[in-house]
Amino acid sequence: MIRFVVAGHRAIASGDFKLDDIAGGAGRLDVLVRCVNSAFFLSHSIRTDVELYLILQGGEDAPKTVRFVGSELRYLNPDERSTASLIRNALLKKTGTCEARSSPGIYVSKDSFFDVIDKLKQISSIVYLKEDGNDVREYEFPENVTFVLGDDKDLTAEEENAVMSCSPSKICLGPISLHADHCMIVVLNELDRSNAV
Amino acid sequence: MIRFVVAGHRAIASGDFKLDDIAGGAGRLDVLVRCVNSAFFLSHSIRTDVELYLILQGGEDAPKTVRFVGSELRYLNPDERSTASLIRNALLKKTGTCEARSSPGIYVSKDSFFDVIDKLKQISSIVYLKEDGNDVREYEFPENVTFVLGDDKDLTAEEENAVMSCSPSKICLGPISLHADHCMIVVLNELDRSNAV
Repeated sequence: MIRFVVAGHRAIASGDFKLDDIAGGAGRLDVLVRCVNSAFFLSHSIRTDVELYLILQGGEDAPKTVRFVGSELRYLNPDERSTASLIRNALLKKTGTCEARSSPGIYVSKDSFFDVIDKLKQISSIVYLKEDGNDVREYEFPENVTFVLGDDKDLTAEEENAVMSCSPSKICLGPISLHADHCMIVVLNELDRSNAV
Repeated sequence: MIRFVVAGHRAIASGDFKLDDIAGGAGRLDVLVRCVNSAFFLSHSIRTDVELYLILQGGEDAPKTVRFVGSELRYLNPDERSTASLIRNALLKKTGTCEARSSPGIYVSKDSFFDVIDKLKQISSIVYLKEDGNDVREYEFPENVTFVLGDDKDLTAEEENAVMSCSPSKICLGPISLHADHCMIVVLNELDRSNAV
């Protein structure tokens, strides 16, 4: 299983935003929405071996985690607006202490970034995508791997400390720093190649 | 210079569409919009060595070509809606026999796919991104290169004939077929790596 965790530092967790304004009033939700596209879309299918955790840390209801499970996903289209709508539906769902299902393959919980990292470090190898890491092309992917990224902002010092406490592999993707969703495309291409050998 | 040509087979050339409906009524303009994002955005800057040609072939005013010039671009944001708005502004501009400037770095003309390929084959090496091509990692990039892609549909037989008549390099990006915008990310990462050597 391949997992991605994306920290949305200002993304509004309440679901109180307009679909016309996901890059503004929704706290750069557009960045997270593009990560959904990158995580799952192939030319003729969906990546069923991927899970994506979006951590929304903006506004009064924060934090919330919206989890996408590739093997269960339905009703996902590649455009930003329709994906933002699925996320908003999840955020508008009442969440108690347990994770709730919003639509097929989409779940919402009150988990924080730190809760998510704590859970995933038990079941997978943590990889921190970072410019000063080792080249991804020399990395041997384990069977269960979790890649951690920031949105348009780097991880905060507290978030980075939580990740570093997992003794992660630090991996870089090339000589130029890329947007989070573009990083995911490069990582997945590398994984596709390593699985094809 | 790195150039991309993307054939938008149904994308509405008249500009007569709603920004809320770019994946529907605009003839899958969302695919082309994501290609703009892939072509130009880096973490902290714009790729100034890239040009992108979007060919809109849907509706009564077709064909039209919207050309993006990385070194001149202003007012470009990564979200789909704002980029679709820039494209619509270009399409609503009156076009005569010459290319017209719509906003900084964005030009519109009545050029067809075939016109664009005819022009670019004079000044650059044509590369056809295709599943049965040679691995991009074994390709030596020339200084001036043009990559040709379809949108969510493959090139038509006529389009493919026009490309093949340029004796293009046929290049594949990995073992799995990807969306056009994701292909562009993989190509650009490869170029970044080859330039860094």
